[in-house]
Amino acid sequence: MYIGAIDIGGSKTIAGLVNENGELLIEKQIVTEKSDCAAHFNRCAALLLEAAAEYGAPAQALEGVGVSLPGMVDHSHSVLLLAPGAGWRDFPAAEFLREALGIRALWCENDVNNCARAELRFAGAPENFLWITVSTGIGGAVVADGRVLLGCNSLAGELGHCKVEFEHPLPCPCGSRGCLEAHASGAALSRRFARLLAEDPQAAALARERGASPDAAGCAALAQAGFSPARALFDRAGGYLGQALAPVVSMLNPERVYFGGGVARSLGLLLPRMRSALGARAAESCAGVEIRATGLGYEASLLGAAALFLEQAR
Amino acid sequence: MYIGAIDIGGSKTIAGLVNENGELLIEKQIVTEKSDCAAHFNRCAALLLEAAAEYGAPAQALEGVGVSLPGMVDHSHSVLLLAPGAGWRDFPAAEFLREALGIRALWCENDVNNCARAELRFAGAPENFLWITVSTGIGGAVVADGRVLLGCNSLAGELGHCKVEFEHPLPCPCGSRGCLEAHASGAALSRRFARLLAEDPQAAALARERGASPDAAGCAALAQAGFSPARALFDRAGGYLGQALAPVVSMLNPERVYFGGGVARSLGLLLPRMRSALGARAAESCAGVEIRATGLGYEASLLGAAALFLEQAR
Repeated sequence: MYIGAIDIGGSKTIAGLVNENGELLIEKQIVTEKSDCAAHFNRCAALLLEAAAEYGAPAQALEGVGVSLPGMVDHSHSVLLLAPGAGWRDFPAAEFLREALGIRALWCENDVNNCARAELRFAGAPENFLWITVSTGIGGAVVADGRVLLGCNSLAGELGHCKVEFEHPLPCPCGSRGCLEAHASGAALSRRFARLLAEDPQAAALARERGASPDAAGCAALAQAGFSPARALFDRAGGYLGQALAPVVSMLNPERVYFGGGVARSLGLLLPRMRSALGARAAESCAGVEIRATGLGYEASLLGAAALFLEQAR
Repeated sequence: MYIGAIDIGGSKTIAGLVNENGELLIEKQIVTEKSDCAAHFNRCAALLLEAAAEYGAPAQALEGVGVSLPGMVDHSHSVLLLAPGAGWRDFPAAEFLREALGIRALWCENDVNNCARAELRFAGAPENFLWITVSTGIGGAVVADGRVLLGCNSLAGELGHCKVEFEHPLPCPCGSRGCLEAHASGAALSRRFARLLAEDPQAAALARERGASPDAAGCAALAQAGFSPARALFDRAGGYLGQALAPVVSMLNPERVYFGGGVARSLGLLLPRMRSALGARAAESCAGVEIRATGLGYEASLLGAAALFLEQAR
């Protein structure tokens, strides 16, 4: 079975073919062009057809298509309500792509929800878990009894905009202050690390020596090397993540919390303080929830698009 | 249709008959005798049969029975794992009552989950909501897509044991400190009000004058009368409730939060600070969630036992 999958991210867009076992057969990548939403969705359609042709599968061979979108999606109509990073709003994503591809069996959903679907269908996740993406921003998804929960307005998962810092709240891209995303996202870590490099000559020298980039990955490299000011930035972010998760974990009793996104590769640096914050703040019966990084890597959202198709096409 | 319903609470036990529309046909009440668990469950069975006989419905006329239990219940086997207030542990509640009553179609569940079931089946609740009981303790339930969520170990809903106070954490009956239950439950309000009466002669005089009892209800009476130190105790409790709910509401996007339990009758006193805490702490898209007191009153858990039967007997 060939399933078309499209993952439109904040900076890059991937299209590819996935089979019913979640094996990625081919993928092609372009930059996400934010200036013209419809034009970019046309390019997405073309990219998928290109990938299919290159793999030797004509459009008619596709069972259907699943799409991951970087924002709030009305689940029942597959309409993109708002993609904050791209500035897109109220775009009838599924209708547009069905037309462009000539394929009816096509559905769109929020990328974080789709990551959770990939974990559930292709990677043996348990029936009850949370998924947290820590990337430029922070997004969440809830799976209970084997189903992704959408909430009453398809707006479930907004953990990134819970407030976690009240004494020195930093501004968040959402317009508010003190959000988890403003204090614990990849972008937040990058900003704090850039400041560390500017203010601490020892940090700057070490970064040069190790070839560490001035972002969250560079900060992780220095933290891994035992440089405690870099380590402290991950500690702080981990503490905020545990603080926001504690009431959620207490109320939902998930078996596991998966972390995805670029920062998930440094989960080991976030974990000690996340665990201690959960221990100090969550109900004792739920505080020991298992926490792990996804094994699906950067393709989680693309595979999740295929999982969405399989869920909808049942 | 006659459904047997039993609600075993921390201090009193009610048994009665409910029809398929959630109408309570008859109820009888006894004190919950905690010293001997099996003996009390035998009395529960007798009480239900008495109520049925008094209504003119022999045991054979019962379609089945639902039971609400004051603690953690293993949903799949209807075993009472732990009732902290009563000190009961690992009691095969359903098996025991099936035997005692000679009725096979009998299921047991946590009382707070059953309250949510009553709201869902008999009172027109939306598909996505939270239920919070604020009584002696604090318990929660989550309904998503019209189903009560149990979590991986049937331990969902433990919002009462989230920590909310870190500078001056009070001891909680669970053995921990700083729990929501230790700071915002009816028992917590009663304790603080008793201290107010002991320390503030004006409060004591006003309480005598108004005939206010030295508990949460008395505190509510003085707060309603405009006595600001009593009002401040509800403000504080409301703030803690909003604080604990903020990440949960952000992650689940419920349409509504119902409050039940004795303190729910004073929801108007809790609401201003609860709303401001939600506004300051929850994701903006979810902070405006509707909050209301249940209309089911003290019978919510008994009606919920009947709703559990209807759910299981499908």
